[in-house]
Amino acid sequence: MSEKVAIKWTEDMSFDADVNGHNITIDAVDNVGGKNKGPRPKPMMLLALGGCTGMDVVSILKKMRVDLDGFNVDVEATTTDEHPKYYDHFTITYTFKGKNLPMAKLEKAVNLSQDRYCGVSEMLRKSSKLDHKIIVEE
Amino acid sequence: MSEKVAIKWTEDMSFDADVNGHNITIDAVDNVGGKNKGPRPKPMMLLALGGCTGMDVVSILKKMRVDLDGFNVDVEATTTDEHPKYYDHFTITYTFKGKNLPMAKLEKAVNLSQDRYCGVSEMLRKSSKLDHKIIVEE
Repeated sequence: MSEKVAIKWTEDMSFDADVNGHNITIDAVDNVGGKNKGPRPKPMMLLALGGCTGMDVVSILKKMRVDLDGFNVDVEATTTDEHPKYYDHFTITYTFKGKNLPMAKLEKAVNLSQDRYCGVSEMLRKSSKLDHKIIVEE
Repeated sequence: MSEKVAIKWTEDMSFDADVNGHNITIDAVDNVGGKNKGPRPKPMMLLALGGCTGMDVVSILKKMRVDLDGFNVDVEATTTDEHPKYYDHFTITYTFKGKNLPMAKLEKAVNLSQDRYCGVSEMLRKSSKLDHKIIVEE
């Protein structure tokens, strides 16, 4: 299996990308010559990580017949100071909303994603520290 | 320095993310319960990689006073077969368009990004093979 993303420079620091047939514009901020027409490219790694594990968790909980009123995945990452600047520590916060949610099943879904299914987590663990926490809100 | 991306589940397999203040929707395809309202999360890593190095190269070539008529960054990645499925080999293709482009400067800009500036390349080299090639079109 292989995947491909085509990224075309449009002007200044702005690029249009085709990702699975959807257009995503990325750009820099104005102090480095951009116009902020879209997000920066590097934080897309946080989106890849949170989206990958978030979809796993939603899918596993559906199979477990756990109904959620809401679900957020927040990803925070710290950056090294020297070039090349990269993310050395990711923290994923899973926030589940609902009434009488079964904590053991939420933890099991998160652990299945982290230990078995989420390929992005698997990759980023090779370069960086990767933590997660679970918050439940009624 | 730290960065944060907030990802909110909307319905089925669809999530809305706030990345640098811009909304990005991700979704699965219909055979796994999605509606393809946006791209899949994992290929966002290819966008992060190509966008990060692409911005480096555009910025370095501007300082070198090299004028481009066009510039594309295509990123291809192969996926492992077993869970967790991850990208084990990335190939970045830099395609430069212009008249009488100075090949040595193009190579220098790409190498500076790959060896010194691109934090995404630095990270992904820890988990995966990372190759690149340069194409010049008149």
